[in-house]
Amino acid sequence: MSTLWTRPDGSSSSLYLRLQSNLEKAIRDGELSQGSKLPAERELAEQLQISRTTVTNAYRELEAKGLVRGYVGRGTYVCALPEPSNVPFAWRGKMSAVSLRLSAESLIVNLSSGDPNLISFGVGCPALECFPTDEYCRLQNSILRNRSVEALGAGPVAGQPILRDAIAKEHSVCTRQVLVVAGSQEGLDLLARCLIDPGDHVIVDQPGYFVGFRTFQAAGARLVGWNAARADVDELEHLILRYRPKFICTTPTFHNPTGRTLSLSQRKDVIELATRYRIPVIEDEPYRQMYFDAPPPPSLHELDERGVVIHLSTFSKVLAPGLRLGYIVAPENVVDLLALAKQRSVWLTAGLEQLVLGEMMLSGMVSHHAQKLRQEHRVRRDAMVQALRRAISKARLNFSVPSGGMFLWCRMSDGPTAAELNRRATAQGVVFAPGELFYPEISESRELRLCFAGTPVSKIEEGVERLRRAFEAQTASEPLATIANA
Amino acid sequence: MSTLWTRPDGSSSSLYLRLQSNLEKAIRDGELSQGSKLPAERELAEQLQISRTTVTNAYRELEAKGLVRGYVGRGTYVCALPEPSNVPFAWRGKMSAVSLRLSAESLIVNLSSGDPNLISFGVGCPALECFPTDEYCRLQNSILRNRSVEALGAGPVAGQPILRDAIAKEHSVCTRQVLVVAGSQEGLDLLARCLIDPGDHVIVDQPGYFVGFRTFQAAGARLVGWNAARADVDELEHLILRYRPKFICTTPTFHNPTGRTLSLSQRKDVIELATRYRIPVIEDEPYRQMYFDAPPPPSLHELDERGVVIHLSTFSKVLAPGLRLGYIVAPENVVDLLALAKQRSVWLTAGLEQLVLGEMMLSGMVSHHAQKLRQEHRVRRDAMVQALRRAISKARLNFSVPSGGMFLWCRMSDGPTAAELNRRATAQGVVFAPGELFYPEISESRELRLCFAGTPVSKIEEGVERLRRAFEAQTASEPLATIANA
Repeated sequence: MSTLWTRPDGSSSSLYLRLQSNLEKAIRDGELSQGSKLPAERELAEQLQISRTTVTNAYRELEAKGLVRGYVGRGTYVCALPEPSNVPFAWRGKMSAVSLRLSAESLIVNLSSGDPNLISFGVGCPALECFPTDEYCRLQNSILRNRSVEALGAGPVAGQPILRDAIAKEHSVCTRQVLVVAGSQEGLDLLARCLIDPGDHVIVDQPGYFVGFRTFQAAGARLVGWNAARADVDELEHLILRYRPKFICTTPTFHNPTGRTLSLSQRKDVIELATRYRIPVIEDEPYRQMYFDAPPPPSLHELDERGVVIHLSTFSKVLAPGLRLGYIVAPENVVDLLALAKQRSVWLTAGLEQLVLGEMMLSGMVSHHAQKLRQEHRVRRDAMVQALRRAISKARLNFSVPSGGMFLWCRMSDGPTAAELNRRATAQGVVFAPGELFYPEISESRELRLCFAGTPVSKIEEGVERLRRAFEAQTASEPLATIANA
Repeated sequence: MSTLWTRPDGSSSSLYLRLQSNLEKAIRDGELSQGSKLPAERELAEQLQISRTTVTNAYRELEAKGLVRGYVGRGTYVCALPEPSNVPFAWRGKMSAVSLRLSAESLIVNLSSGDPNLISFGVGCPALECFPTDEYCRLQNSILRNRSVEALGAGPVAGQPILRDAIAKEHSVCTRQVLVVAGSQEGLDLLARCLIDPGDHVIVDQPGYFVGFRTFQAAGARLVGWNAARADVDELEHLILRYRPKFICTTPTFHNPTGRTLSLSQRKDVIELATRYRIPVIEDEPYRQMYFDAPPPPSLHELDERGVVIHLSTFSKVLAPGLRLGYIVAPENVVDLLALAKQRSVWLTAGLEQLVLGEMMLSGMVSHHAQKLRQEHRVRRDAMVQALRRAISKARLNFSVPSGGMFLWCRMSDGPTAAELNRRATAQGVVFAPGELFYPEISESRELRLCFAGTPVSKIEEGVERLRRAFEAQTASEPLATIANA
């Protein structure tokens, strides 16, 4: 036996480090080979006349480095050579289980791109060309100059008073029932954190808003899809009885992606079910103001008499997604809990935007702009519908014309999956949101969501022409595929 | 026996609803009293000549409403009267366990307030009076006019390229190693989601940044405090060996709240430990540029050769917290995973601020402003130190003078707790951050954190005078307390 098993020199405080370093050297030099057994801790402590804790610490440290492994009742064995020092740190082993699981199923959805030549029907973006730039600049300059501490300082977690008041006024609630969030996506995230316990079932529209699915799953929810286009209230009741969900999350108006709007009687039925079974409803209403014909029926929140509905909205669709402003209307005690969750997630929402938006709401500028957008988006919807009908036969691409919102939800009769068509379309310089995205479980789909709102008419026509070419490419390649399969 | 136990009329599909409604009526009318037993499901199904499923569904629905409760092997019993319809919805029962647990321990920390007469030494805010308003307005107007789609549209999740590039350049990393976040609080939250599994230990500075504590706890972490002022690396190693933490989160430079800065050799020791035990380090460095004498030693990230350090910073301290802009520098695969988590939490960071900050960094305006702030904050620090020394004796309030950062960390020799003193101070028109906040477990503290950076000199003097009066109030009340205790 070598000098390895003799007492290391030095003060008692650093003994274990020396012992550990001697052992490490022996493993590195091959003196202790992989699979060989180290002396039992008690035995070695006696032999070296050191405390057992010192040996334990040295062994533990070697184990932390992955050099040895201890087995209860069997002893400690050399299990690997030390890692060479130039190997990059193994981060993957440090990642949380939820994060790894979701990353395997997720994709960063960048449906727009930095490429100015690409036409994107992918992102649900309003007509930014109509944005009231001059008024916005005037307001933000004036607020930065005159109310800099409110705009730049650490404002209240629940939001700037002027904006909360304006929202409260619009929804006929009191200010304490309003929480300002950085877009409705943050709202969904806060609601997920505050309502979902791991394993809870949550009823979602299917197809539906895909990022919301991931948000709920990250909080541990099991998703139950309610057929969004059918919107059958009996089916909803069966799902409630079967799954006892923690809550229902639904978009009643100009639903994303299908465009359907629940009728007044369907809305009343949903509220009645929610109240009877005591299941909260999260009403995600980003498209409410985007109607082209008659305004939609009252929101679930307006119909709710018991406080079972949480209303979620955003300025992303009525102004611009890059502003990152949205809000939640909920009972006061829910807002208080959400604000605590917000404090430990992003803390504050940017102050300047809140003050500008507060002023814009109070002066009527936001509703004025919504009206302007309704006109422009209607023109764009018509342009896309006409271009599609001209370019691609109904038999190959079928859709109904929505009376609001931002999307055409189209179904292909056959051919490749939507994801595959999107790859071909990208090669032609146009992208859309493939149907696969909108289902809780990713699967094949032959549906596509085309956003008509964010693209000017001339580009819509060019984009549809590119889409036609992607369809042609599809047909051209099919015989080849048939041969390959034959 | 009444007609209750006869077959309800109607089609089979709605049978269970009718049965349920008959039973509900009977409970409401007192025909079925609290505690009475319903017939067994099989029995009732035979008696009424309906399917057992119909009975089961009706009983389930009654149970969902809280009217009956089923016990395995014993049967189903009437347990309550139906709730009157005007009772508000019981939200608390729907809240997630984590959210309720943390809300019991949390407080919304609004250390500032809307009251213009209150002087706040509470929030860690820089001198907003120095904010480069004209340049900022000029840049944001020009960007809104010329690059509206980038500023207002749905930009990339990881951040605007110009800002990521500017940050990457400053830190000598590649762009893909940078993630833009809405303030470092969002960064901590994303890191918590991506790294922490429930039950993981996490080593944090103690005392330390209190919102970070809650963020980690919300993700399920158990916090282990490393004494921040002592910053003993041997102690850190013992904590690592004892708790096998998922990561270490520390502020090496001008630590909040103590103001201490780790020496170069302490930094090297921390890196050496982290590398040896393969424990990631999150380096939270909001105050790095806020030095008054020599610049601080290199960051942990600069010293790290293995990629074990994630660097987190913010523009909140060098410009303004209301902007909500910060960033993470990490290995590419970590940034990719964080971006996925960001997509399902807040999705995007506001575009306009990112573009403005990108321009400001590239033109040198941010470092120029940091220099200006260093001068102004130093003047404010000196003013607060002198005012305190004049107003309150060292024996009663002791602190050392920090060479950077934003805070004086003061210790009272006796008297009330910091929280109690803060209540008295609030009555005098001044607030600070009481020491209780800065410990993972809320407990009594006689420490106070005073932010000198956010308040102009004249107000600092007035604020310290109010603080002195709060101390006097304390002394005045002590004899009474003694009598009460006698």
